[in-house]
Amino acid sequence: MSNPTVAEYVLCRLADLGISHIFGVPGDYSFGINDAVENVPSLRWVACANELNAAYAADGYARVRGAAILNTTFGVGELSAINGVMGSKAHRLPVFHLVGSPSERIKYQGLATHHNLGDGDFGRFKPISESACCVSAELTPDNAIEETERVIREALRQSMPAYITISELCGRQRVIGVPKVGVPLDQIKRQGSDPEELAAALTEITNRLTEARQPVAVVEALVARYGMAEEAARFISRTNIVFVTTPNGKGTLDESMPEFLGVYTGEGSWPEGVCDRVEAADLVLALGGLANVELNTGAWSTRFDPAKTITINDRWVQAGGKIFTPVAIDDVLRGLVERAQPVPSVPAIQPQAPAMVGSPDERLTSANLYPRLQRMLHAGDSLVIETGTCMFHLAKTLLPRGVESHSQTLWGSIGWGTPAALGVAMAKTNGRTWLVTGDGSHQLTYNEIAVMGRYGIKPVILVLNNGIYGVEYVVAEPVDHPHEYNNLANVQYHLIPAAMGCRGWLARRVGTVAELEEAFAAISGHDGGVYLEVMIPPEESQPEPAAYFNRQYKLSTPEPA
Amino acid sequence: MSNPTVAEYVLCRLADLGISHIFGVPGDYSFGINDAVENVPSLRWVACANELNAAYAADGYARVRGAAILNTTFGVGELSAINGVMGSKAHRLPVFHLVGSPSERIKYQGLATHHNLGDGDFGRFKPISESACCVSAELTPDNAIEETERVIREALRQSMPAYITISELCGRQRVIGVPKVGVPLDQIKRQGSDPEELAAALTEITNRLTEARQPVAVVEALVARYGMAEEAARFISRTNIVFVTTPNGKGTLDESMPEFLGVYTGEGSWPEGVCDRVEAADLVLALGGLANVELNTGAWSTRFDPAKTITINDRWVQAGGKIFTPVAIDDVLRGLVERAQPVPSVPAIQPQAPAMVGSPDERLTSANLYPRLQRMLHAGDSLVIETGTCMFHLAKTLLPRGVESHSQTLWGSIGWGTPAALGVAMAKTNGRTWLVTGDGSHQLTYNEIAVMGRYGIKPVILVLNNGIYGVEYVVAEPVDHPHEYNNLANVQYHLIPAAMGCRGWLARRVGTVAELEEAFAAISGHDGGVYLEVMIPPEESQPEPAAYFNRQYKLSTPEPA
Repeated sequence: MSNPTVAEYVLCRLADLGISHIFGVPGDYSFGINDAVENVPSLRWVACANELNAAYAADGYARVRGAAILNTTFGVGELSAINGVMGSKAHRLPVFHLVGSPSERIKYQGLATHHNLGDGDFGRFKPISESACCVSAELTPDNAIEETERVIREALRQSMPAYITISELCGRQRVIGVPKVGVPLDQIKRQGSDPEELAAALTEITNRLTEARQPVAVVEALVARYGMAEEAARFISRTNIVFVTTPNGKGTLDESMPEFLGVYTGEGSWPEGVCDRVEAADLVLALGGLANVELNTGAWSTRFDPAKTITINDRWVQAGGKIFTPVAIDDVLRGLVERAQPVPSVPAIQPQAPAMVGSPDERLTSANLYPRLQRMLHAGDSLVIETGTCMFHLAKTLLPRGVESHSQTLWGSIGWGTPAALGVAMAKTNGRTWLVTGDGSHQLTYNEIAVMGRYGIKPVILVLNNGIYGVEYVVAEPVDHPHEYNNLANVQYHLIPAAMGCRGWLARRVGTVAELEEAFAAISGHDGGVYLEVMIPPEESQPEPAAYFNRQYKLSTPEPA
Repeated sequence: MSNPTVAEYVLCRLADLGISHIFGVPGDYSFGINDAVENVPSLRWVACANELNAAYAADGYARVRGAAILNTTFGVGELSAINGVMGSKAHRLPVFHLVGSPSERIKYQGLATHHNLGDGDFGRFKPISESACCVSAELTPDNAIEETERVIREALRQSMPAYITISELCGRQRVIGVPKVGVPLDQIKRQGSDPEELAAALTEITNRLTEARQPVAVVEALVARYGMAEEAARFISRTNIVFVTTPNGKGTLDESMPEFLGVYTGEGSWPEGVCDRVEAADLVLALGGLANVELNTGAWSTRFDPAKTITINDRWVQAGGKIFTPVAIDDVLRGLVERAQPVPSVPAIQPQAPAMVGSPDERLTSANLYPRLQRMLHAGDSLVIETGTCMFHLAKTLLPRGVESHSQTLWGSIGWGTPAALGVAMAKTNGRTWLVTGDGSHQLTYNEIAVMGRYGIKPVILVLNNGIYGVEYVVAEPVDHPHEYNNLANVQYHLIPAAMGCRGWLARRVGTVAELEEAFAAISGHDGGVYLEVMIPPEESQPEPAAYFNRQYKLSTPEPA
């Protein structure tokens, strides 16, 4: 684009990364950006139901494309989005949060505007929004070219969100200087390494691998954030090192790889034997760090002996008391693929698809639901797993070859899954997007179903309706009575797609195995969204590793007298 | 309650103010608070669809009851709510935002938890949430009694939200010390005045009133925030001073008062003659300050001559170059009721109910809709006006005797109206709650309809469906083509109440005058919620004072070359 406005310029520059959608809510102060989208042919505007949903959608999109754009307006819009953006920070996703702000022609006259506290303080919301990002900039015609480069570079280097404000006036003014043209994200070297530190780190790792008799790799989601999933798979295939994922890393690598052992999360590990196997390893090679929160570690029941653990973080490697820095995760993985030799072959644990149980007229339960769901997933599909009891069940469900999955096992903001599925579906170029969510989570954000219908997105959505906040029922540990606050409104979920204007969707309520199977059979020939309200008895909400929640609960309450 | 836990104590102490509902989303870290609600008989838990909706509901509730309680959890919950709480700060509503945080037993061990960034920084979200409040406290067993007093005192003094964190552990531990019992809000002296400053201010105002030949009062919403609406009405009746409201102050005083002239908002004033009348006054007495944002001032077209204006703010009075402080608004109004004498009688402008126009088979338009709506409002009813074009139409609609109204003419966060109507309805003890909202705003938060159905709330909701963001259509000023980003998803709104489980609701789509009249006729005999999807042609979205938006738009864009 020749002679672009500031808004057009930053959008073009972000589109160069391979981003082709922008999620947001339009609004005054932001029209400069909204209008600019219409002039950037490679970008499509996606009007989300609200800003938090837009932030979640951008989060999902960035998980697939590597980066995403979110657009909100000053004050009300950016604040509504902040929980979603903070979640992207936690999950290390470069979401570019573009915020339209009042015009300098208004500010410089000292005029007060709406979306503020009635005064002329226009700097009030910046520190709030910035706190969810790793870098920020206020773009003007004369700084836009340099500042855009800085913001993109730093957001990609740290793999975290960026906050970019553009006033309504500046957004419509032409950039001063020579516009730059960028390259796709996968062609960008995002971090650098000190050559000596890198060489030392690689020597340390390869030596330790050579010495190890029973090494195991642990794969975290951060590997995918830096576009290194294929490189990690190459390293594993080359060395034959067995590997596990954490719940947060699940779906990063193909679970059909022969080296895949299962999911390690301390006492909640799957399948049987995996926990012992990881903890008996003489070398644990943690690819992508370790998210040490209780949701990811079976309530802190994972056991890593620092002396036996090497952690490859984003830009540093830790081997016991040795720290190598700066060494970029991509340099380390590429170096290992070049140098590492096969490790001793040991019998692998073979995780199995969950056994098919249940007769046709049986009520749906976790035991008979997940095996049937698992067999519906095909190569190219993406599975979005909402926070809740389904997350624990699905952590123990083998993903078929070529199926990736996404969850929020760290930030854990209920409601994320539905808009994130929109973002994932928009980012994908083939395969279906599946969403499994409980009703407790879905109710927060199901207005996004209307947006899916509007844009012709065709996900398969399973809403597990048990009438309660299932996971909270577990965590709150009702001793003598169920807590009323865990009950939910009596939404007739199967009526939602039609009410929200989704045309050609298959929407059903299913309560038995036969009904589920019938609905699943109808999916293959169906060209449209699918929305199943899956009736699950409340007592089925109990995930198997409830014991470790009780530990957290007990930690949280006074000691018995 | 004897020997209460920290959570029980603060809830009891807040309930003493006259608060009987708590809006929120339950969750781990917050169970100490959730459980405590079950032990406070005077408090009812209201499970909102999400935290932003809960914040909006609390905002609505506080407008009626004077204060409200919002409960969210650490990180994800409090951040989701912040836009709503910031709106309550802008609109000067004491919303007590109670946030459950991780247990000290977790924090002191240095364990990382979910709802955070994977580290042990538990102080990350406090400055963010605090910024939407005027006071904050972290309650512990040994500070709960004193800190609760401080927080309540300051939130009421400043009439702004308060941020209170209670860890899961502390929430369940017993307070140390002697619990205090409070009194209802209307018995509390919230601010104090310096006696000499107060006397001087009253002298100044009464002298100026005595000299004035053509004084006018302007009433802002802040009068109601300090519980002074009745006192202001008494002052007006006693002095016979004619008065206007601003759009933001509309509904604060009864519009059937003979002294009521209309709504002053510069060029957008109503009815004809009001603008000249206010600007020709030799004394403008501004009760409750003046929100100088463009939405409230006809895009900054109000004209107040400082030499002729006296402003009675929350705790200070300005008369030209003289500032009197601290003088509390309640002391000033009470003093004026005692001292002020009748002002010269001048012919009042009599605003009229909008004329009934339109034949039965005519399509619904703003011209034929609002007159019919106006005639349906009865004493005791509350009208919640969402931000959007309806706000401008309703600013010019006479409220019948005993009808109050609420809007967000300052913060202007679209989506506020629907949950706020839930809060208003829960706070009221008689009369219906009416909500007028556009589809552009409604789509952000209509999942709250399920909550209304669940709790048996019976509002009358008019969703004006024109398929676009109407007000943005105006503000974005499409020159050659309508912007695609102003279009909305094709939601079948009249199907929403049934899909969301609202039993016994009257839900209809109406497109003609006859259909609207038929639906209105059905309301009187109907004991349940009413939900009308009102089909309005997009071109009808244009509010009459579009001209002043264009001024803002022009201010926001580059000067023509």
